[in-house]
Order: sequence, then C-alpha cells, then structure tokens
Amino acid sequence: MDFLSGFLMRFMGQLQSPTLGFLIGGMVIASLGSQLQIPDAIYKFIVFMLLMKVGLSGGIAIRNANLSEMLLPALFAAVMGILIVFIGRYTLARMPNVKVVDAVATAGLFGAVSGSTLAAALTLLEEQGIEYEAWAGALYPFMDIPALVTAIVVASIYLSKRKRDKYYFNEEYVSKQSVAVGGYTDEISGPASRYPGGSGITAAGYPKDPDTTPGKRVRIWPIVKESLQGSALSALLLGIALGILTRPDSVFESFYEPLFRGLLSILMLVMGMEAWSRLGELRKVAQWYAVYAVIAPLVHGLIAFGLGMIAHFVTGFSLGGVVILAVIACSSSDISGPPTLRAGIPSANPSAYIGASTAVGTPVAIALGIPLYIGLAQAFMGG
Amino acid sequence: MDFLSGFLMRFMGQLQSPTLGFLIGGMVIASLGSQLQIPDAIYKFIVFMLLMKVGLSGGIAIRNANLSEMLLPALFAAVMGILIVFIGRYTLARMPNVKVVDAVATAGLFGAVSGSTLAAALTLLEEQGIEYEAWAGALYPFMDIPALVTAIVVASIYLSKRKRDKYYFNEEYVSKQSVAVGGYTDEISGPASRYPGGSGITAAGYPKDPDTTPGKRVRIWPIVKESLQGSALSALLLGIALGILTRPDSVFESFYEPLFRGLLSILMLVMGMEAWSRLGELRKVAQWYAVYAVIAPLVHGLIAFGLGMIAHFVTGFSLGGVVILAVIACSSSDISGPPTLRAGIPSANPSAYIGASTAVGTPVAIALGIPLYIGLAQAFMGG
Amino acid sequence: MDFLSGFLMRFMGQLQSPTLGFLIGGMVIASLGSQLQIPDAIYKFIVFMLLMKVGLSGGIAIRNANLSEMLLPALFAAVMGILIVFIGRYTLARMPNVKVVDAVATAGLFGAVSGSTLAAALTLLEEQGIEYEAWAGALYPFMDIPALVTAIVVASIYLSKRKRDKYYFNEEYVSKQSVAVGGYTDEISGPASRYPGGSGITAAGYPKDPDTTPGKRVRIWPIVKESLQGSALSALLLGIALGILTRPDSVFESFYEPLFRGLLSILMLVMGMEAWSRLGELRKVAQWYAVYAVIAPLVHGLIAFGLGMIAHFVTGFSLGGVVILAVIACSSSDISGPPTLRAGIPSANPSAYIGASTAVGTPVAIALGIPLYIGLAQAFMGG
Repeated sequence: MDFLSGFLMRFMGQLQSPTLGFLIGGMVIASLGSQLQIPDAIYKFIVFMLLMKVGLSGGIAIRNANLSEMLLPALFAAVMGILIVFIGRYTLARMPNVKVVDAVATAGLFGAVSGSTLAAALTLLEEQGIEYEAWAGALYPFMDIPALVTAIVVASIYLSKRKRDKYYFNEEYVSKQSVAVGGYTDEISGPASRYPGGSGITAAGYPKDPDTTPGKRVRIWPIVKESLQGSALSALLLGIALGILTRPDSVFESFYEPLFRGLLSILMLVMGMEAWSRLGELRKVAQWYAVYAVIAPLVHGLIAFGLGMIAHFVTGFSLGGVVILAVIACSSSDISGPPTLRAGIPSANPSAYIGASTAVGTPVAIALGIPLYIGLAQAFMGG
Repeated sequence: MDFLSGFLMRFMGQLQSPTLGFLIGGMVIASLGSQLQIPDAIYKFIVFMLLMKVGLSGGIAIRNANLSEMLLPALFAAVMGILIVFIGRYTLARMPNVKVVDAVATAGLFGAVSGSTLAAALTLLEEQGIEYEAWAGALYPFMDIPALVTAIVVASIYLSKRKRDKYYFNEEYVSKQSVAVGGYTDEISGPASRYPGGSGITAAGYPKDPDTTPGKRVRIWPIVKESLQGSALSALLLGIALGILTRPDSVFESFYEPLFRGLLSILMLVMGMEAWSRLGELRKVAQWYAVYAVIAPLVHGLIAFGLGMIAHFVTGFSLGGVVILAVIACSSSDISGPPTLRAGIPSANPSAYIGASTAVGTPVAIALGIPLYIGLAQAFMGG
Repeated sequence: MDFLSGFLMRFMGQLQSPTLGFLIGGMVIASLGSQLQIPDAIYKFIVFMLLMKVGLSGGIAIRNANLSEMLLPALFAAVMGILIVFIGRYTLARMPNVKVVDAVATAGLFGAVSGSTLAAALTLLEEQGIEYEAWAGALYPFMDIPALVTAIVVASIYLSKRKRDKYYFNEEYVSKQSVAVGGYTDEISGPASRYPGGSGITAAGYPKDPDTTPGKRVRIWPIVKESLQGSALSALLLGIALGILTRPDSVFESFYEPLFRGLLSILMLVMGMEAWSRLGELRKVAQWYAVYAVIAPLVHGLIAFGLGMIAHFVTGFSLGGVVILAVIACSSSDISGPPTLRAGIPSANPSAYIGASTAVGTPVAIALGIPLYIGLAQAFMGG
C-alpha cells in the first residue's frame, strides 16, 4: 500500500519534471496545430552537444576511475549493458505488432543508466550505513555506453536485413510508412532524415554497399563500422576519447555540462512534436511496453545483483557496490539515452521508448528496485 | 530643470545600454556596407529561446502568485494591456503617414512591461516607506502578455482586411514595399519571411483561406487562431503553460535566463541591420512617435492608477500596489517585447517601435512616471 | 638540458589542452571516416560569437586603459603587430613550396597575442619583484588586432593579384586546388565557402570589380575596404566599437565570455576535420614552419624589446613594461586568432598556422622567450 502510493507520487512527480514536461508540451502544441519549428541546423547541433556531453562525462569518469581495481565489476557492467539489449530484442520485440526498432531502442534506454536514480541509491546507501567503494558510481559509463552502442548496431543490422528481404518478399514497408505519417510527412521525415550519418543507416548507406545485395547473407562488420562512423556514435565515442586522453574538464564544466539540461529540454520539445504524430502507432501495443517497463528493470537488476555477488566472492567487491551495480542495471536513462537513440536509430518512435522509460521505468526503479536490492544486500549481511 | 537634466542623463545612459548599443551597432555596420550575416536558422532559434524565456518567466510568476487575492488587480492589469493597444490603434495609427502595423507594434511594446522600470519603482517605494503587497510585482505578466497577444492579433486582422481590400482598390501596397526596400531586398525580405509561422500572416496564410475571399467580411476567429498557432505565440504560450503546470525552474535558471541577455544582444544586432534600411520610412512620421512616446506612458499610468484606486476601495488593494499597477502600465518593454513583436508582426518596422520605447518611453517612465504616481499615492495617504 | 626538458614537458602539456585536443580529435575522426558534421549555420554562428568576444574584450580593455599615458607603447605594439605579418610575408612565405596565404595566416597568428603566455609572464614578473605599469597588460589588443587585420588584408591583396595574373599566365591554380582536396571536395569547399564575407575575397568579389580587370595594377584600397566589410572583420571591429563606446560588460561577462571556450572547442573540431584532408599539403614544407615557429617568436620579442627600450628612455616606460611588450610580441595566439583567420582567410590551411603556433610557438614563447626577456631586463637593471 505504501509502495503503491509512493509509486504513484513518483509517477506524478515525473510528469512535472522538465524532461517529460517539454515532451508533453511538444505533443500538446503539435495536437493544437502549432507552426512552431526548431530549425534543422539547430536540431543537429543540439544532438551533437548532448552526445558530446554524454561522451565527455563518461570519458572523464573512466579516466578518473581506478581501472585495475574495478576491472571485474566494470566488465560485468558492460556485459549487463549488452545483455539488456538482447533481452529486449528477444522479449519485447517479439510481442505481436511491436516494431522491432522501437523495442530495441526501448531496450537500449533500459540498458542505459539514469544519473538521478543512481544518486537516489547512493543517498539511501549512506543513510542505511552500507559501505561501498568510492569508484562504484563510476561504473555507470561501462554499462551506459555498451547498451546504447549495442542498441544502435542491433537496430542497424535488423534494418539492413529487412531492407534486403524487401527485394524478395516485396514487403509493404515503404507504403506502410507513408500512410503512418499521413499529411504530416514533412514534419516527420524532417527529423528522421535530419541526422545524415544516422539516417544513412536506413536510407543512403546501403544501395552502394555490395555486401547487402539481395540474396547474400548480411555481413555484420560493415554495418557495425557504418554505425560507428555515423554522426551519433562518432560524436559519442569522440567525447569518450577526449575525456580519457585530454584534459577537457574546464570546457566540460563551463560549457557542455551547464548547457546540457537546457538543450535537452528543446530536444524533448522536438521529440514531443514528432511523438504526437506517431502516438497512434502505439495504440495496439501500449500494454506490452507497460508490462516490459514494470518487469524488465527488476529482472535486469536481479541479474546484475547475481553478477555482483560473483565479484563479491571473487574479488571482495563490497555489498554496497553490488547494490549499485544492480541499481544501474535496473535504472533506465531519461537524460543521456534519448538524444543518442534519436540520432542513432532515427526511425524508432520516441513515444515508445521515452514513454516506457521515463513514465514507468524510472518510478519502478526508484520505488521498487532500490529498496529491493538494498533489502537483499542487508539479508546477505545479516547471513 | 532638475527633471529635464535627469531625463537627459537617463536618455544618454540608455544609449549606452547593451540593448540599444547592439541595435545602433547593427545600424552602423549596415550603413557601412558590412556583409555580416546571422544565419537564418540561428535567428529563428534565438527568437524561440527569447519567447520561451519570456513565457516561462511569466508562467512561473503566475504559478507562484496568490491568484485569489490578486484577482481584481490582475484583471485590471490585463484590461490595461489590451486597452493600451487599442489606444495606440486609434491615436498613433491614425496620424498622417504613420503605418498601422508600426503603430500597433509600438502600442504593443508600450503595453508590455519593463522589468527594470518596475525594479526602479519597487526600490523607490521601499525608500519612501510605502507598503505594497508582496505579489504586486507579479502583476506584470497579466499586463505584458495580453498586450503582446492583442497587438499581434490586431495587426493580423488589419493586414488581413487590407489584403482583401487590395483586390478591389488595387492599392499600391506591393509596389510601395519594393521601392522602400530598394536594392536591399534580400536582406529585408530575409528577416521578414524568416519566421514562417508569423510571416504566414502576411503572405502564405491567406490565399488558401476561404474566409478572406474578396467581398466578404473578414472573420476574426480564424485570424486569432492562426496568430495563436504561429510560431511566435505558440512558443510564448507554451512557455507560460510549462511555467504554470510543470517545475521548469531549474532549467529556466540554468539555461533560458542566463542566455537571455546575450541572445537578445544578437537579435538587436539583426534588428539594427534591418532597421537601418527602413529608417527612411520614419522620416516623415518621427514627430508622431516622439509625441506618442512622451504622452502615452503618462496617460496609460494615470488610467491604471484610476483602476488601481477602484481595487483600493473595493478589495483594500494597497496604495503601494496602486503605484505598481500604474508603473507597469506606464513602462514600455525594451527586453521581452521586441523579440515577440519581431516574430509576431514581422512586417512592422523595428526602428519605429524600439526607438520610441527604449529611447524615449523608458526614460519618460522612470524620470516622470514613477515620481508622478508616488506623489499621487502620497497625496491620497495624506488625505 | 633543463630548458629542453621544460620545453618538452610544455609541449606534451599543450597536446592535452582542450584547444589542441579537439583539433586532433577532429583529425582523428576524419581519418576514420566519421560522418559527423557541424551544420553550416552553426559554424557561422560560432565564428560570429568568437569574433564578437575577441572584439568586445579588446574594446573593453581599450576603454578601461589610460590612453594618454600608454600612447607610445600602444603605438609600438601596433607597429609590431603589422611588422610581424610583413616579416612572415618576406621570410616564411618565400620558402620553396610554402603557400603564401598559409604563411601570411601563420604570421598573423604569431602577431596576435596569447592571453595565457601573457598571464605566465605577469606571474613571473611579480615573483621576481619587477615592477610594471598596471595598464601594461592592456597593450595586447593594440598588437593583436592590427596583426590579424593586416594578415587578412595582405592575404586578400595577394589573392587578388594572383587572380588577375591568372588571366595572363593561366596558372594551374584552380586545377591544383581540385586535386589537392581530392574526393573530399564537399567537406573542404564547404568550410572554405562558408563565410560569405570572407570567401567573397577569393571568389565572388572580384569579377564585378572593375579595378582588377586583367592588365591593370591591383588597387589596394578597394581590397582593404572589402576586407573590412567582410563578415570576419566587421564582427571583430563592431565588437571593438561596442566595447569602447557602450557598456557591454554585463552581457560580455554573462554570455560571450563563458561560451567562448566551449564554442572554440567545436570550431577546433571542425578545423581538425578539415585539417586532416589538408595535412598532405604540409609534407614538403613542415620543416620551414618548424624553423619559423622556433626562431620568429624570439626575434619578434627582441625587436619589441628594442622598441620598448626606446619608450623606456623617452617616456619612462618601466622595464617590467618593456618585458611585457616583448612577451606579447613573442607570444602567438592559440585562442583569439584561429577563428578570425578562419573566417578572414578561408583558403589558408589551418593545419599550418595552428600547428605552428600552438604546438611549437607557444611552448617556445613560454619556455624560452619569457626567461630571455626577463633576463635582459634584469641585466639593464643591474647596469
């Protein structure tokens, strides 16, 4: 009962967060026929800024981390990030009428990490007097980045295979798309084709690619390479490299970090305007997203808790650290993930993945996940 | 004598303010043939950012206000905002050679509120020990926003009627325009057509509109609706809604607020470059703007003072609050107003409305208006 | 030995600075085939912002300076700024295979001033107890701006003459260019033609110019005027004028200054991506840049030291001030210069001028120049 009311309070609180507020605001003005537009160049720049910030902060965290000591937990974090995407690929994406790219993007977001959920967990651990390694918070990029990269690559491979199949089975892919967007084509195809590197995946990239001619098996490596060279992942990876190899802290703290939330609010507005026109796509499948968004975070956290216990027995990883690993697996990103997925999987429906993550996944992680894993850890302590 | 020298000192000080400095700077480099250009996408983004900030700050002020207590003064503030535009429409706009859109935009700016004039009045009230309600300063959005919205809608209705009449009387509207802008067409038509939502009002919007075919009476509601759906007002109203309904305070304080003055300086530069080429239009009518800019603020303030006195006797609104209501009616916006009008009434000449407001209206309000209304209030106190 | 290890440490440190880090990052992702792009409108806006900031900070420094007292040193600073460009024009630019525009841009950067080198010198002077005038640091814009303006004008004159000669000697200019950029044409010609004002110098400006028809002597003044009207110099000069004549300090400190380093990091990324494709051009001439970047700063500093000594004997300019004049002549800009040159001489190769200045010139100035001039001053004091 207490759990439920706590959950509902957090759910209502999330609706007032600027992130979701701007998303819903964009949906509302789109529904009212507003002619507001964010210029394409600005949109691309905002995405670049957000990816660079996500990359830089990950890179700086890795540079400052004690890599030798955190080797096994970091490895487990990366494994979890990748695993979560594949879990989504073989559960949510298999549900009737659920679009695969939407499901993969959603799984990518659930694999990525929410800074605020992590902060909530750290606060609670301290309140309960449970000790953890100082570097445990720095595990997040080791899960966050593999999850996002895996989601983008898995989506690219899927789209590429589908493209090839289309030549044979003459799937009604293209015509379906055109119907879905209706009279709104310009507004929609705008954002989708905005990020040339990313959208190259669905469109420009393949005709010239000899490896994907009809009849042949799709070769994975060229698609992975193309995903990594796309504008989304190259900005992200460049940020990580600069964060690790140079000293960008001053420019990060004076520029990328303070502008982040504001630029994100504008991106959310744009995504909301687009989401409005694609909300209909979700009518038949919303229940699958709801079920996934409640169950998946708890399952991810339990698997990570198990991996953390292995590290606990092998290398003496603290029980507090195990909780942190479980919480970052349980959390779903509402900040760093959306811009990356928007640029990397432009054809995925943001209403699906942001709705599932921010509106359901995050409250579940905070209200159910954190107490669950802390309780488990305390059970092991008492034992 | 003291009044005059105080006024002149404030007038000179205004010329050094960054707002007017960048405007004049833009005029100077345009006159010297500079090829400096602010890309169109940047221009649109700046206008969006400014409108969003104006909307958010208004919405946050309304959310934090004690609505039930301030009902009557807030109503009077809104009435004043609308009334000021109509006063301008039937005085300044009727002067020989004065263009109606320029006059309406100027009246909109005089209806909008200057934060710095308001701050000066609050400081003086405290120095004089005159008490006022803590929420009295929050009356400003109730006047500011109705004034700007009314100005944009009145201008749209005027342009729409004129458009219809043109079919009959074959007014030399188009040819006059082309001559006015001369060889500078590209520079001018650029900014004017930059904001698609807004400029749709003057150009793209109407041919398709069956309500405005020649011979019929112009229907008001479709024009109001189109104004509200235009990019200018939808950004403004979205900001207000987000400010009232969500908790955007952190993103407002870390992003929209700190970037505001800087982005405004760039907008002023762009408007200055455009203003230069349109300065000639004002040669024959500058005296009317000067007369309006001196008399109108004082008259607006006196009407508002009268309305405030009604609230004083009916609901016990403090005399300090009455002064504040008079001062915000007397003040003319030099910050929030220009971007809104620029986007909402793109065909209006910024040299007219910014010149009248910033160079004359603001010094008049500070040097003459504030002392006048405080003196009046003290006379009532003594009585 | 100590000198050498100190130099090498500073050299390695420079490679980790965000400025150079983002430049090298851009080169690396370009070499890996990344499809990352910064939209053209954003690029132009960033250049505008950087130039505005450089201009404003120069203008504010001049406004706050004691002009009558610093007249002679300021004059010498301006003379040095101009002289350094001509020294480069008649030494580096004459080396075999060195392109004249690249050499002139490099000389412009060595004439411009590095704020961090200046700060290092001021710290050392205070440590050594050598007194200097409080306004001596404000000498920098008097050298910085004339050097950059002279470089842009000299490059324009050269390109204009070359353009005229092409009609006669049918130089293989155009074809050479196309070969140099290879399959990367779009990426390169993009940035090069991005800043219409600046690139007008090389392309659009001249066909219409009657003064440069084949066979006539190129007239200098129209080219100077066109350079000053170009978007690069008009933003810079407007910033200076606003800094001197208005009070833009608040908008400068809240907007232009804090955004500077971040926007510069993005510009560096863009320049790095371009530099990668033009690195090959430098293969045959890198040694000349290396020799210039080691010798030129020390020579510039010695000439400035001599001029400073004249001011010392004529007007009593302090020996500490003489050191400062020598250090700002010795220093080469790694912050304010690149955006100005990028916009003003778009055809110059950034790999040449930034590489020479940031990677070699700045460590030479800090590790060799500053101790040399302080030692000289102490010799004069002891004498």
